[in-house]
Amino acid sequence: MKPTFSSFLFGGDWNPEQWPEDTWEEDIEKLEDAHINEATINVFSWALLQPSEDRYDFSMLDKIVVLLVKHRFNIVMATGTAALPAWMVRTHPEVIRTDQEGKHRVFGGRHNFCPTSEYFRQASGALAGHLAERYADTPGLVAWHVGNEYGGGGGLCYCEGCARAFRVWLKEKYGTVQALNQAWCANFWSHTIYDWDDVVPPVINGDGIGENKCVISGLQMDYRRFQEQAQLACFTNERDAIRRHDGSTPITTNLMGTFKDLDYFEWARQMDLVSWDNYPGMDTPPSFTAMSHDLMRGVGGGRPFMLMEQTPNQQNWFPFCKVKRPGEVRRLSWQAVAHGADTVQFFQMKQSRGGCERFHGAVIDHSGSEESRVFKETAALGAELNRVGARLMGSRVVAKVAIMFDWQSYWSLEGCVGPTAGFSYPQEVHRFYRPLYRRNLAVDFIPSTSPVETLKKYDLVLAPALISLLPGVADHLESYVSDGGTFVTGYMAGIHDERDLVVPGGYPGVLRRLTGVWVEEIDALAPDETIPVEGLAAVDGQPAGQIVASLIHCEGAKPLASYGGGDFYAGSPALTVNDFGRGRAYFVGTPLDEAGMDAFMDPIVDGLGLPAVDTPKDVSISIRQSDDGTRYVIVINSARSPITADLPLLRGGEDLLAGGRVSGPLDLPPYGVALVALA
Amino acid sequence: MKPTFSSFLFGGDWNPEQWPEDTWEEDIEKLEDAHINEATINVFSWALLQPSEDRYDFSMLDKIVVLLVKHRFNIVMATGTAALPAWMVRTHPEVIRTDQEGKHRVFGGRHNFCPTSEYFRQASGALAGHLAERYADTPGLVAWHVGNEYGGGGGLCYCEGCARAFRVWLKEKYGTVQALNQAWCANFWSHTIYDWDDVVPPVINGDGIGENKCVISGLQMDYRRFQEQAQLACFTNERDAIRRHDGSTPITTNLMGTFKDLDYFEWARQMDLVSWDNYPGMDTPPSFTAMSHDLMRGVGGGRPFMLMEQTPNQQNWFPFCKVKRPGEVRRLSWQAVAHGADTVQFFQMKQSRGGCERFHGAVIDHSGSEESRVFKETAALGAELNRVGARLMGSRVVAKVAIMFDWQSYWSLEGCVGPTAGFSYPQEVHRFYRPLYRRNLAVDFIPSTSPVETLKKYDLVLAPALISLLPGVADHLESYVSDGGTFVTGYMAGIHDERDLVVPGGYPGVLRRLTGVWVEEIDALAPDETIPVEGLAAVDGQPAGQIVASLIHCEGAKPLASYGGGDFYAGSPALTVNDFGRGRAYFVGTPLDEAGMDAFMDPIVDGLGLPAVDTPKDVSISIRQSDDGTRYVIVINSARSPITADLPLLRGGEDLLAGGRVSGPLDLPPYGVALVALA
Amino acid sequence: MKPTFSSFLFGGDWNPEQWPEDTWEEDIEKLEDAHINEATINVFSWALLQPSEDRYDFSMLDKIVVLLVKHRFNIVMATGTAALPAWMVRTHPEVIRTDQEGKHRVFGGRHNFCPTSEYFRQASGALAGHLAERYADTPGLVAWHVGNEYGGGGGLCYCEGCARAFRVWLKEKYGTVQALNQAWCANFWSHTIYDWDDVVPPVINGDGIGENKCVISGLQMDYRRFQEQAQLACFTNERDAIRRHDGSTPITTNLMGTFKDLDYFEWARQMDLVSWDNYPGMDTPPSFTAMSHDLMRGVGGGRPFMLMEQTPNQQNWFPFCKVKRPGEVRRLSWQAVAHGADTVQFFQMKQSRGGCERFHGAVIDHSGSEESRVFKETAALGAELNRVGARLMGSRVVAKVAIMFDWQSYWSLEGCVGPTAGFSYPQEVHRFYRPLYRRNLAVDFIPSTSPVETLKKYDLVLAPALISLLPGVADHLESYVSDGGTFVTGYMAGIHDERDLVVPGGYPGVLRRLTGVWVEEIDALAPDETIPVEGLAAVDGQPAGQIVASLIHCEGAKPLASYGGGDFYAGSPALTVNDFGRGRAYFVGTPLDEAGMDAFMDPIVDGLGLPAVDTPKDVSISIRQSDDGTRYVIVINSARSPITADLPLLRGGEDLLAGGRVSGPLDLPPYGVALVALA
Repeated sequence: MKPTFSSFLFGGDWNPEQWPEDTWEEDIEKLEDAHINEATINVFSWALLQPSEDRYDFSMLDKIVVLLVKHRFNIVMATGTAALPAWMVRTHPEVIRTDQEGKHRVFGGRHNFCPTSEYFRQASGALAGHLAERYADTPGLVAWHVGNEYGGGGGLCYCEGCARAFRVWLKEKYGTVQALNQAWCANFWSHTIYDWDDVVPPVINGDGIGENKCVISGLQMDYRRFQEQAQLACFTNERDAIRRHDGSTPITTNLMGTFKDLDYFEWARQMDLVSWDNYPGMDTPPSFTAMSHDLMRGVGGGRPFMLMEQTPNQQNWFPFCKVKRPGEVRRLSWQAVAHGADTVQFFQMKQSRGGCERFHGAVIDHSGSEESRVFKETAALGAELNRVGARLMGSRVVAKVAIMFDWQSYWSLEGCVGPTAGFSYPQEVHRFYRPLYRRNLAVDFIPSTSPVETLKKYDLVLAPALISLLPGVADHLESYVSDGGTFVTGYMAGIHDERDLVVPGGYPGVLRRLTGVWVEEIDALAPDETIPVEGLAAVDGQPAGQIVASLIHCEGAKPLASYGGGDFYAGSPALTVNDFGRGRAYFVGTPLDEAGMDAFMDPIVDGLGLPAVDTPKDVSISIRQSDDGTRYVIVINSARSPITADLPLLRGGEDLLAGGRVSGPLDLPPYGVALVALA
Repeated sequence: MKPTFSSFLFGGDWNPEQWPEDTWEEDIEKLEDAHINEATINVFSWALLQPSEDRYDFSMLDKIVVLLVKHRFNIVMATGTAALPAWMVRTHPEVIRTDQEGKHRVFGGRHNFCPTSEYFRQASGALAGHLAERYADTPGLVAWHVGNEYGGGGGLCYCEGCARAFRVWLKEKYGTVQALNQAWCANFWSHTIYDWDDVVPPVINGDGIGENKCVISGLQMDYRRFQEQAQLACFTNERDAIRRHDGSTPITTNLMGTFKDLDYFEWARQMDLVSWDNYPGMDTPPSFTAMSHDLMRGVGGGRPFMLMEQTPNQQNWFPFCKVKRPGEVRRLSWQAVAHGADTVQFFQMKQSRGGCERFHGAVIDHSGSEESRVFKETAALGAELNRVGARLMGSRVVAKVAIMFDWQSYWSLEGCVGPTAGFSYPQEVHRFYRPLYRRNLAVDFIPSTSPVETLKKYDLVLAPALISLLPGVADHLESYVSDGGTFVTGYMAGIHDERDLVVPGGYPGVLRRLTGVWVEEIDALAPDETIPVEGLAAVDGQPAGQIVASLIHCEGAKPLASYGGGDFYAGSPALTVNDFGRGRAYFVGTPLDEAGMDAFMDPIVDGLGLPAVDTPKDVSISIRQSDDGTRYVIVINSARSPITADLPLLRGGEDLLAGGRVSGPLDLPPYGVALVALA
Repeated sequence: MKPTFSSFLFGGDWNPEQWPEDTWEEDIEKLEDAHINEATINVFSWALLQPSEDRYDFSMLDKIVVLLVKHRFNIVMATGTAALPAWMVRTHPEVIRTDQEGKHRVFGGRHNFCPTSEYFRQASGALAGHLAERYADTPGLVAWHVGNEYGGGGGLCYCEGCARAFRVWLKEKYGTVQALNQAWCANFWSHTIYDWDDVVPPVINGDGIGENKCVISGLQMDYRRFQEQAQLACFTNERDAIRRHDGSTPITTNLMGTFKDLDYFEWARQMDLVSWDNYPGMDTPPSFTAMSHDLMRGVGGGRPFMLMEQTPNQQNWFPFCKVKRPGEVRRLSWQAVAHGADTVQFFQMKQSRGGCERFHGAVIDHSGSEESRVFKETAALGAELNRVGARLMGSRVVAKVAIMFDWQSYWSLEGCVGPTAGFSYPQEVHRFYRPLYRRNLAVDFIPSTSPVETLKKYDLVLAPALISLLPGVADHLESYVSDGGTFVTGYMAGIHDERDLVVPGGYPGVLRRLTGVWVEEIDALAPDETIPVEGLAAVDGQPAGQIVASLIHCEGAKPLASYGGGDFYAGSPALTVNDFGRGRAYFVGTPLDEAGMDAFMDPIVDGLGLPAVDTPKDVSISIRQSDDGTRYVIVINSARSPITADLPLLRGGEDLLAGGRVSGPLDLPPYGVALVALA
């Protein structure tokens, strides 16, 4: 497909306003030495741009832009609305969030505007409009960046204004309080209401049980949906203000992977292109990072995305922050490209002297030196991307496997009060993603409501922990499978309907017919407890389940494996498969460990003839396919030791980084990367 | 004694108002299939019954009652006042609690009415009266159930209204501020007051140190007593409203075992019969559950009680919730009966679709099936109880051993700031209960203020961790022992008087004469530290103390065991006995582990000739004696494996569950139960 | 030097107002039996002394004083203002603190007056004045004690009054908001302000990140400084009120060692003499306690200090509180004297009956007995001090080594958000103090801003974790070293300037020239992780670093040791030394474990010919030198087992406690102490 940008963007956040003006050009020149060609600016400048309610001052931004234009930089222009000016919070206190404990914020922090504040909408929209009017025609302007990391660190707002808006939202959704009572099962604990004013957001002093659970879970689900849409309306409000002055430059905001509070499928529909910030923790496995990239590509409908932020060195917000090892940033950058990134951008270009992010890595560190390890590694990466990056732009990841990622189930699963508090939805999705990643299979992420025609593009569709079945989903899945598709789901699936009420008649609810099982009970395991699962051909050791064990009755399905151990349900099915029409539906009764998931998934992968590629441990490959048929294979060694990988697939390919043709095994240094073009 | 009910109640909470009306009768028929003969209804229906301040609507409840009457169910009618309607909190915000941090609640949750709210008293009393007026003559009505689990999850209230009422309460108790200053030792940290308005409840922003401790402990003790009595007044207020329309049906509310906030001895005096909710955790030992039953029987003066709630399957509120194993609910049910229950009731009859208790077990689960394991086990238990339950009703547990359980000491012990934060009062009581349970001895729980004639009914009286000696207690104990009684107390006993002030002159204060010891110092042990105790004939291993070690001087008492180890007080007495008149008083200097407590108690039990029965590990027996002299022996295997128990006591008895006569060893399956009638 | 007091004070806090008047004299007589000669009174009597706004009542205090005078006690008279009367908080709510979460306190607790409250200043000053007027001429009055443990447990105040005063304080410091924005790097996250009213204290709902960190660290640093000075002004306000009536009696308040919130160097400048409260925890190493004494001596400019409080037995506020072992209190008392104490005082004389400190040890315990172990040990210590204490008074500790303790760095280091949260500033200072303590070297603590002439008094100056370099400090240090001094610093040093902004140009900022190193990166280690350090001649095992590892480039410095292990910077310098003029500067790249610090410091100590004395493990010696040249050597066995120590230094000295002359090895019992006078 046609790339969004005309060159491969290599750069990131630059905040010259924190430095004396006489240092700016010198810094730009340093960045040029590192082959940096893009600057994201103005991310946190609202207070500078608008000194008071009725005054704007673009003088400093003008100077910054002039300098970037002079140096022919690509510019991503932020609207700067992600942190409120102090004067605004002082004069309009309602503009800032109130937390779940009822504490109203005062000036400070960021990402904490009240999403239903009329003043915020007016003021942020006005600023975005002024910026667009002034800078729309700037040479090098490649994208608009609205706000920043919506929701990041800010939590939901529980102010009185939000409560009022929520009641209006509910009234529009349900029409009558009777319908609301019905949907919320409100006769529980005397929660029946007679007046919309009786609705109270799920605050801690009310029905909230922490931020994830609630006495009335429907209240919680509705409040999350309402808040998410209110934040989205803040984004579209600024977006529309920009569009009034700039009809074509793409508009984005930076997403955050598996962030819980926002349903990014809804968001991406309102964005011209997806961008996101990748900050893996020190113990995040590469497969989880890969999954996050795939999810971000998925919410954008499969199109390449911007890697808007990552760090050139250590992050600063962990209890302890290790420096990135040599080659580690390069590895992460290529991993992003491998999964669909068409840019590599950093936070940030120059390390701050003050503020709580001062110890976050940057291309230019506190020493200001070009001799630093980080600067040199960045420059080398820049040279490399400068040389070959453009060839990959617009190429696509082609997948025959899809995983449903469903924010409704995310909220609902983690909202359950019982049978366990052990679930993290993204971790459960990752449990099913990992065995596919291990076989180097491309995976698309799709919404649970995908129509049958979308499902049919895939040989295999997985729905991990899909606890909430929205209307129509079961029908689509039945059609897909009966027409020959293969479907995998399991524990916790199908329990709730779209109102977060249990579907009567036995788990997995509307999936019972498709999976051919009835889950009579769900037993929970202690945090360090496992249950053996027998009957799988595991490569490494005895597979085991954890967290929960579904007590399954086969109603047409055939058992594939059974529980071991000495409990009363030992011998009963732990894994099943059901022939349904021309396809098959698998049900996984317990969260299997890595060995178990591999042993379960490998036969399915092989049986479907999916294009798996086996690589040595810690070596992964990913493929981007361009319109001209070229396949770009990115090979990554995620280990801190060298590995030699013999990959027949690559024979004869053009080794774009090392040069020459691939004729034998690849010698990958620690964190090594290879990029091979196959005609 | 004459049983309260004419048949053995088997049933529990049923909330049809959460379900469509057309499902009700079908559900009743299912319950009948499980031999269920009782329904507790209307527990959380305030909002349904009273849509607004001046309007009541009993139409749905009428229908429910009609159906139950048609099916000849026994009915326990709740007053439904345990959760406030939303409209009431909105229009009368003072009706709901304020927490210790000063946060006033908004609508939501349950058990959180302000106990001094005049509006709450008026409204809840009015509702109870209307209900009694309407349903007093309902066929099958067997009991009234006021509110629900008073205090459960709600904490104390610290609102301004409570503060005002507290000042009035104090004025009535103390008369003058001078007397208050004296009682509270208020010259400490400049706490002297001159005006009743200077009294501030023990809030976190004042003198409160968490919910259990306080700068001025007398303030904390008085506030706890005041709050407890305020809640009790809410109960009696509804009770009296019912009595105005129904002169005879017993009135109860469900208690919660060792729950801290309410002095159940005070409560039971206001209740026609005791009922309680038994929810052991997954790691609660059977002896602790047995102790809780005995305590509940004890607060009711030894009469049989109602087991108002237990779960037919897993609870839902733990971090992980295991399903109840096959036989486990039956075992728990018979354990309750063995210790004095005359009913077996569940929460709940049908599992909820919504609300935060949806994953709590129920007789009819989400599948609605009668084929579920839980349904079938419930039905089998019902059949069994239906057959033999009535024979046991009204029979009594006869004990020669009594343990003092003292809520004042509960609050005071856990209120100490030093020498350790390691004490849980119920756990310390259980420490002394367990060796009696192990010997299958019946135990009564009595208040510390029991008169001498009560004490004399027992061969052995124990007072674990009785830190607060109320006026007269020491005199009663001295009379009891000097007349031949045996008394056991120990660490932390006697330190405080009724004002929570230290008794000067050396520990254990007014018990120093009786015990013949002076405890000079109390050393605390680290959480994982133990101290060897030497000189006891322990069956298993070397006994050890934990948490604290009292440094004891014998003043007449004789040492029974001494501290080992290498500390400076090694060799000094750890356990003593004092001959006092014709009796004996034991002092236990350190919380002994299980081996140590057994080694200490066994000689006392044997020496007194108490009717101990030795059973295999995990097998317990309990006896209920009927007025006709029949002794019903309940034998329970608490293990998950089968055990054969040879119990000569049972020979020739009638095996009421299996049929026939007992002629040899009993084969008890996992969680197995036997019921043997001895003429 | 001339001692402050004419006799060695042995006594402490006495609160007779908590007891009936008829017990007072009996208690005094008991205290006399324990050789106690001093009573600190009136510490918490504000409410007693001032029953209402316009009334004072000194009648009870008069009686107490009369009795003490009769018994010829020395009197330390407290002003009693450390806990607010209830009536005052009720009628002037602004007099009490608001916490960082915005919760305003109500009456209760102590040490919680608002430090900017005008009413508090007026009322506390008035009370102090009245007391001074009344009691200035009391026979035996030896000192005034203002307030109590300023800041102890109270935290900072964040009320609206403090916010207003803070803005005035900032305006005086910075002049313009532009200067403030510059100093705070306020363009970060849109924090630019235009009006002083935009300044918000670092509350949790604003920029505060816990109590130690902040979005804008300059805001946090300024707020800490402002609050500290406000509290100090409360002290000087009372001090000045006393001085108006008493021109000569020394005025003090009790400090708390390494307490974070108050810069005791600033405080001691306003105090006539330093006093402090020593409460080591059960696991505090003796070296840390020694360091605390040295610090307290140091803030007082090296003069002897008062040991105002310690406990005669267990403390009460830990989760578990062990009794002090026999000899332990004597050992702690002599350790204090060894490091400069000229008094030994306790909290408290008689144990309370009520209040949350009732289980804190006292000379007279709850039994009231003189037969208690604690009473007898106290009496023996009193006899000993009575006999020899006066000889040591006024003698000095003479040190050739100084450590900079810098409250600005304390706040700044613990305020860093990255690269690690693993630092406790006092622990890092202790890391460098311990190897000196092990060699029995006297150490002075000095402010970082000490002038060159001060530095030159020392052969060795250390500046652990001196992250903030105030103006001039680097110059002083360069002068000191170039003139022959030896300087030790290391990790985290020099990063910040006085505004808490990073010094550009590379770490360690302005110390880069002196140390001859550039720290390019700071890697953080996991909490349980270590990194081997190679090249040091370690006595015990392989030295290792922890918490952080500085990645060092030598720019003139020579490496002394290097990192081991397998990481990418293995082999690079971990420890360096730089010849600078006639002196040397060492840079320690990683917090070394005990073995490593010893291996690093021993050669420096030996090379400089410092007067180290080697003693067996757990035996320490300290020397106080009197004006007449006598050296008093205090030898302490900190072990719970006996040790024989052969110390040639002591040969021929007079053994002041055991009597006679030292002629051979000393036999030290557990916790044993010897005091030897060398002519």
